[in-house]
Amino acid sequence: MHINAYGAYAGDKPLEPLKITRRTPGKDDVQIDIAYCGVCHSDLHQVRAEWAGTHFPCVPGHEIVGRISALGASVSGFKVGDLVGVGCIVDSCRHCEECDDGLENYCDGMIGTYNFPTQDEPGWTLGGYSQTIVVHEHYVLRINHAEEHLAAVAPLLCAGITTYSPLRHWQAGPGKKVGIVGIGGLGHMGIKLAHAMGAHVVAFTTSDTKREAARALGADEVVVSRNAEEMQAHAKSFDLIVNTVAAPHDLDAFVTLLKRDGTMTLVGAPSSPHPSPSVMNLIGKRRAIAGSMIGGIPETQEMLDFCAQHNIVADIELIRAEDINDAYERMLKGDVKYRFVIDNASLATP
Amino acid sequence: MHINAYGAYAGDKPLEPLKITRRTPGKDDVQIDIAYCGVCHSDLHQVRAEWAGTHFPCVPGHEIVGRISALGASVSGFKVGDLVGVGCIVDSCRHCEECDDGLENYCDGMIGTYNFPTQDEPGWTLGGYSQTIVVHEHYVLRINHAEEHLAAVAPLLCAGITTYSPLRHWQAGPGKKVGIVGIGGLGHMGIKLAHAMGAHVVAFTTSDTKREAARALGADEVVVSRNAEEMQAHAKSFDLIVNTVAAPHDLDAFVTLLKRDGTMTLVGAPSSPHPSPSVMNLIGKRRAIAGSMIGGIPETQEMLDFCAQHNIVADIELIRAEDINDAYERMLKGDVKYRFVIDNASLATP
Repeated sequence: MHINAYGAYAGDKPLEPLKITRRTPGKDDVQIDIAYCGVCHSDLHQVRAEWAGTHFPCVPGHEIVGRISALGASVSGFKVGDLVGVGCIVDSCRHCEECDDGLENYCDGMIGTYNFPTQDEPGWTLGGYSQTIVVHEHYVLRINHAEEHLAAVAPLLCAGITTYSPLRHWQAGPGKKVGIVGIGGLGHMGIKLAHAMGAHVVAFTTSDTKREAARALGADEVVVSRNAEEMQAHAKSFDLIVNTVAAPHDLDAFVTLLKRDGTMTLVGAPSSPHPSPSVMNLIGKRRAIAGSMIGGIPETQEMLDFCAQHNIVADIELIRAEDINDAYERMLKGDVKYRFVIDNASLATP
Repeated sequence: MHINAYGAYAGDKPLEPLKITRRTPGKDDVQIDIAYCGVCHSDLHQVRAEWAGTHFPCVPGHEIVGRISALGASVSGFKVGDLVGVGCIVDSCRHCEECDDGLENYCDGMIGTYNFPTQDEPGWTLGGYSQTIVVHEHYVLRINHAEEHLAAVAPLLCAGITTYSPLRHWQAGPGKKVGIVGIGGLGHMGIKLAHAMGAHVVAFTTSDTKREAARALGADEVVVSRNAEEMQAHAKSFDLIVNTVAAPHDLDAFVTLLKRDGTMTLVGAPSSPHPSPSVMNLIGKRRAIAGSMIGGIPETQEMLDFCAQHNIVADIELIRAEDINDAYERMLKGDVKYRFVIDNASLATP
């Protein structure tokens, strides 16, 4: 099947319309007509070859929602017409400890939704900036949100699960004080989710102008991290801090806000290293700095169900596919509240 | 009470005999005739003013064992003649969350055994390089080892608990693969303890010559960390690594050996920072880098009981007090297997 997509032929070229092929659904496959695809910062890193190993043409996109248009003969969990999603994972080894534990995201054989090896043409996976996608049913998520919110559900598939998973793993909930560092695509979801889990949520931002916005998202308190006095008032008080900021910054400023046995979890990898964190800050209160990467398939479904139940979606700005290059530029300036989502109907007439 | 001690009058002066006073035991105090005191690297850092804030004269020593020689009227848990120990902690606030949880080591008001503020003369605490010490009974530990092993019990009070606590906290035991980095005062205890807990123990050393010694201590395997091939063979396999090396080094080499959800716990703080660890290594397997500092009083008692039950003591070299300056020089060269212990009887005739 030949379909329309948006992608780039080189790291220094803008994205443009192109034709790609999708495999005929195999017996376990689900074919999805993509309605919307969220725009993640990873898309930009990969397609601009800021990360090593980009294969071109590259079609990014791993926050995919749409409706099932065809099914393989053995697919039992879905039917044509179902609203479904696909996130960052389209395959994994299915027999390692991680896969057995439903943590396909940590499988060494995880196949990402774009730029990972595949038998399909052209030899690497092509993502959701496209009209359709064909995925093994194991990696397809059910969407229970009302269809009118579908575009705003798309970012849950990456930004949502990336923050949901560490919040659950480190047990955010009632009685827990949780910090979210950065109020962007990831952070705005982190605030909403931690709030819905019942935690006391403190949002950290470098910008005084984001105070009201962070409160509106569900933050109980907002701290401007450049203000040493505001920071000091929260010393040794956090159970968990989810740090969404990928730019190199002083981690110690946040580590010192953790109480004994507290953890700061990093969900963004900087392109150059953070300043080396103080070991004494870790030792003195048995604190930890950890990392977390998206989430497994069962947990992603749990997150979607949790969001449907709590009426949580992302705050988005809908764009047409041809606006993607401008959207990247605005994303780099932080000029989006809080996630761009492509209306994939705009791909029909490129 | 005026007693003999060994200490220094300035950071650039050698240790020498000096006279200090100890308070008359208060109603909750235990007075201990010190038999032996272990020599910890912290002693050297503090007395040489390599750490900020050293008060002089400084009498180091926080691996103290001896026999009770007097008791306050309200002391109920001990009697004169009991074999007891005192570690790194001689007081704390006794009403914070940490103290309530038996984690006095993380109390903001923790009073260390030397160089911490006290009402006693001269205004800061003086440690175990001395003939006696007077300590509130809450911070006195019972020793159940046979008396003949008493000198070798001393290092358990710091080196022992510093490694025991993270091994217990991160659940070393049967079915767990545990790494111990560095085979010195701390590391040799870590190997013995992790082995006794039933873990599969891998010792890491930079020196090929320590292989046999590490096995003799209880390591199931020994890896020379400079050998990339040996290291690679253990990739993604450890549940826990306790890193006792305080010198700045490449943490990533060990982080990559952790399996998913594994933790590397640092128990030594470098004087200059480690190279900044890779965030991607943390994110990709939900790994953590944590810290741990000695242990609380209840856990220290638990450790001593565990060691008595498993016939665990430190490997020591007994010295006289006047040998301490030479011992420091040898310690700096790593020329000790694995802990110097002062025979405090040598203080009687300075």
